[in-house]
Amino acid sequence: MTHKMKSWQDSAAQLIAVAAGRAAADLVFRGGRVVIVQTREILDWEIAIVDGRFAYVGPDASHCTGEGTEIVDAQGRYLIPGLCDGHMHIESGMLTPAEFARAVIPHGTTTMFADPHEIANVLGLNGVRLMHDEALMQAVSIYMQMPSCAPSAPGLETTGREIGPDDVAEAMAWPGIIGLGEMMNFPGVIAGNDKMLAEIAATQQAGKTVGGHYASPDLGPSFHAYAAGGPADDHEGTREEDAIARMRAGMRAMLRLGSAWYDVESQITAVTERGLDPRNMVLCTDDCFAKTLVDDGHMDRVVRHAIACGCDPLIALQMATVNTASHFGLERELGSIAPGRRADVILTGDLSELPIEKVWARGVLVAEGGECLVDCPHLDWPDHARTTVHLGRSLVAEDFGIPAPEGANRVTAKVIGVVENQAPTKALTADLPVADGVVLPEGDVCRIALVERHRGTGGVVNGFVSGFGYEGRMAIASTVAHDSHHMIVVGTDPALMAAASNRLGEVGGGVSVWKDGEELALVELPVAGLMSDRPAKEVAAAVDRMVSVMQACGCTLNNAFMQHSLLALVVIPELRISDLGLVDVTRFELTDVLE
Amino acid sequence: MTHKMKSWQDSAAQLIAVAAGRAAADLVFRGGRVVIVQTREILDWEIAIVDGRFAYVGPDASHCTGEGTEIVDAQGRYLIPGLCDGHMHIESGMLTPAEFARAVIPHGTTTMFADPHEIANVLGLNGVRLMHDEALMQAVSIYMQMPSCAPSAPGLETTGREIGPDDVAEAMAWPGIIGLGEMMNFPGVIAGNDKMLAEIAATQQAGKTVGGHYASPDLGPSFHAYAAGGPADDHEGTREEDAIARMRAGMRAMLRLGSAWYDVESQITAVTERGLDPRNMVLCTDDCFAKTLVDDGHMDRVVRHAIACGCDPLIALQMATVNTASHFGLERELGSIAPGRRADVILTGDLSELPIEKVWARGVLVAEGGECLVDCPHLDWPDHARTTVHLGRSLVAEDFGIPAPEGANRVTAKVIGVVENQAPTKALTADLPVADGVVLPEGDVCRIALVERHRGTGGVVNGFVSGFGYEGRMAIASTVAHDSHHMIVVGTDPALMAAASNRLGEVGGGVSVWKDGEELALVELPVAGLMSDRPAKEVAAAVDRMVSVMQACGCTLNNAFMQHSLLALVVIPELRISDLGLVDVTRFELTDVLE
Repeated sequence: MTHKMKSWQDSAAQLIAVAAGRAAADLVFRGGRVVIVQTREILDWEIAIVDGRFAYVGPDASHCTGEGTEIVDAQGRYLIPGLCDGHMHIESGMLTPAEFARAVIPHGTTTMFADPHEIANVLGLNGVRLMHDEALMQAVSIYMQMPSCAPSAPGLETTGREIGPDDVAEAMAWPGIIGLGEMMNFPGVIAGNDKMLAEIAATQQAGKTVGGHYASPDLGPSFHAYAAGGPADDHEGTREEDAIARMRAGMRAMLRLGSAWYDVESQITAVTERGLDPRNMVLCTDDCFAKTLVDDGHMDRVVRHAIACGCDPLIALQMATVNTASHFGLERELGSIAPGRRADVILTGDLSELPIEKVWARGVLVAEGGECLVDCPHLDWPDHARTTVHLGRSLVAEDFGIPAPEGANRVTAKVIGVVENQAPTKALTADLPVADGVVLPEGDVCRIALVERHRGTGGVVNGFVSGFGYEGRMAIASTVAHDSHHMIVVGTDPALMAAASNRLGEVGGGVSVWKDGEELALVELPVAGLMSDRPAKEVAAAVDRMVSVMQACGCTLNNAFMQHSLLALVVIPELRISDLGLVDVTRFELTDVLE
Repeated sequence: MTHKMKSWQDSAAQLIAVAAGRAAADLVFRGGRVVIVQTREILDWEIAIVDGRFAYVGPDASHCTGEGTEIVDAQGRYLIPGLCDGHMHIESGMLTPAEFARAVIPHGTTTMFADPHEIANVLGLNGVRLMHDEALMQAVSIYMQMPSCAPSAPGLETTGREIGPDDVAEAMAWPGIIGLGEMMNFPGVIAGNDKMLAEIAATQQAGKTVGGHYASPDLGPSFHAYAAGGPADDHEGTREEDAIARMRAGMRAMLRLGSAWYDVESQITAVTERGLDPRNMVLCTDDCFAKTLVDDGHMDRVVRHAIACGCDPLIALQMATVNTASHFGLERELGSIAPGRRADVILTGDLSELPIEKVWARGVLVAEGGECLVDCPHLDWPDHARTTVHLGRSLVAEDFGIPAPEGANRVTAKVIGVVENQAPTKALTADLPVADGVVLPEGDVCRIALVERHRGTGGVVNGFVSGFGYEGRMAIASTVAHDSHHMIVVGTDPALMAAASNRLGEVGGGVSVWKDGEELALVELPVAGLMSDRPAKEVAAAVDRMVSVMQACGCTLNNAFMQHSLLALVVIPELRISDLGLVDVTRFELTDVLE
């Protein structure tokens, strides 16, 4: 089954009839304190809903009720608009859109603007379409941003598929596409790269919103050049001056609180302390792991945090409702409790703590007391999306070694240095022994391999990594391997690395962790090797197990798996690995492992 | 010559190059205090412009200058975005779009949202297209709202042409159409009238803005039903509660200061005193006469007035810039001084008095010291648009009489009672004498006739009117005759009424005033009988003469000509005249003159 709703214009006659008192509403709220985000007011008002949209919002809805009308008594509690996530990646939760929706609906998120950048790297435009199609089946509103940068680093990696301006132009005509996903190639925009500008142009031509991603502290001419290129928002700011610069440049400052992002507190002071007009601030999550969704929340967590940071609750709510809707040209469709809009409503007893007691989406009760009550239909994901781990052959221990130069006893090797709580790695070197013509890791240095998994070339690129603290015989392989999503394998034991890789080939992707000859944890992510179609709780539990086993192997880093999965992200300094080799990200060029 | 500009996407490479310092700007502002309406700040910043758009807005534009760059030193004065008029009728100025533009550019208006409702009544969709085409030729931005209600009162009048949902759907694809013009048939929307809903649906389907017009003080279910129908703004509010109701309903409250509208002061208190979020308030003029444009200003006058009413100048400016642009989905195109937007800038020395010292539109200096410096190209208006007064025959004195019932000496006649400073008329009666079988006016009662002028039927509908104070032998005829724009002739002398009517037939429309056998004033409005393509000063002078002659004929009413031109507006109570007869507007039906 698929959830559908009619457009405002197709429901207008019915909406008018209810508001005028000629027809009965489906649902009426009484006794509530309605938060009017347009004016920043709280009113003791009533609400009538029909056809999934607000028909009447005013002091007395008794003329809208009839025999079939369900009456909800809010008992003095607040009715606020459903929350909107201004920018996020569903894949980060390792969940399909349906299961992501099931996880966040109880947290009051009724609208998401999702960039399926990860699946685009694996399956290209077709993958985006599959995400788009499952998104449109849901009871809540999931709009898709067309990914802009696959590959993220052309020439330094080979993705499963690529995205180009023609794909962007094609996707802009799809019903659920709201704009262009974060334009990460900011050096390209600043340099006037034709392909990047063509993607932006196709989006602007369609009248849609260009997402930004300016991941640099430089607020000089480069930033201004980026803004002149067309990106209309940015969630990469981390400092107050970043938020201010973006708003002054006519962009929306998106403030993010994700599982591992904490960028609200440092930026919201632009409003809370400097008193700038808050209309151009938007809250978002960017990336949330399943565990966060299960344990801590989603957009409710972000709004709660913004309030805890000193933001007026009504302004914080604006930043997660009407501001977001306006940004995407949807202010007449959702984001406020006003006639004609989608009837997305949250019942909460407190505007600071923001307990999400009940949630209605399009006039239907979809969650209560933390439980999702609505069907979250699954797309029938086609085989080609479920068989994306193409190794081409069975890997063996010998695939995971680096031959030493003839006659060498010791060599100097470049080592990717993982730093706790930091996305950038360090470009280290280590003096390593050689045995049987192969370089051996030593101490905290262990092996890393990038296994090609999109085209079955059988290619394995080897290198060294330090900082995880792995000990004993172990290996961990993952097909979540930003952004190209080949397979990253880290380990101390070549045979186990081969076993973990082959295991992911068998199950269609995910994460496999081996210790002392046995697989002790497996997170199955059969959809594109990135997502599970099992509920968030199950996925979170599997991830928990995986983390425990990583710890048992000696790794006690914060967010260790995230560190693992970012080791192929060849746009963040200093040293990374790709299917083409070791990448020096300070110079944007390939480099040799051995010096 | 026609002014054109490239889209943001077509100029993006150039904009980026300038902002990055690789190319020289066309124009750079230095030494100014830049008003940032997005954040509500004033910054000592610099601005670089290329291709008619802002490329760089920041602390130091020296890297954007080159050999060909013109440098403007603002000498500490303010640089504010060009002003936007959220809703207006160009025809009210009796000027073509080109001449209207020439008149308002020196007042800092660089964007207008114009509803060509009057010409639509005369020439239908084709008339709208002609306005649209001339609008697109200008150096400033004139967007057209597709008129929604021609005729205004179906069944009670015959317009020159009619507008229907198919016309609306067709116009939505034109490049300069921004939405639907004010949906005046609010009872129709509330009643669920198919045609009105189809027009709204066609507009929403195109993703454009539906203009509203809810001219009633009733804020109960009728108002809510209207809001549920889709109109997204309304400029008919007159009280604080009207503005608040509209914003709470998810609409923009448009506050109007026209030549005869004074609705800002009473409504802006919703922001200035009640502290509601101002983002949903928009300033507009609705109707300005040429004389107002020449003597008092345009949007500068409105903003100045809003500030005088106690509004913070930056908030008042938001209401005439970014708020307006956002409402029409144009916030990334204009309405702020930010990268990519049209480079519309005003130089002013004071943010309260708002003297408009210089105006740039799309980066070109278009006005200085009250003088328009830019070419305002005229459309080559086709003959059919210049020959719209079709009387069908030469009218004679005998056309302007009402035959009395056989044998009657005196009769009781219905009389349209004009009330100074009020749009509604009174339905009066008068006991009038009969001579030669014809009813004669007496005292302050004089003759009124509606002369059919669209189809040359030769039809003349006669009645009586009081309140003008005309004395002696006189007549005044006008083809400005809201909304159907036939010809309204008022006079004491049938022969002069015939002469005035025939004169307008000769010159193609306008206003002709006769006294004692002579034409003493003529305002020629050859375009559709509504507009002149002469400069505003000339038109204002002709109108001044007309008013003087009306006064010489005994009429001292405020806005006497407006009262005259509204006598056929069969949607405003109580008694009006149309080509179909005398109209009782309290019952919406035709009625007999004689009882």
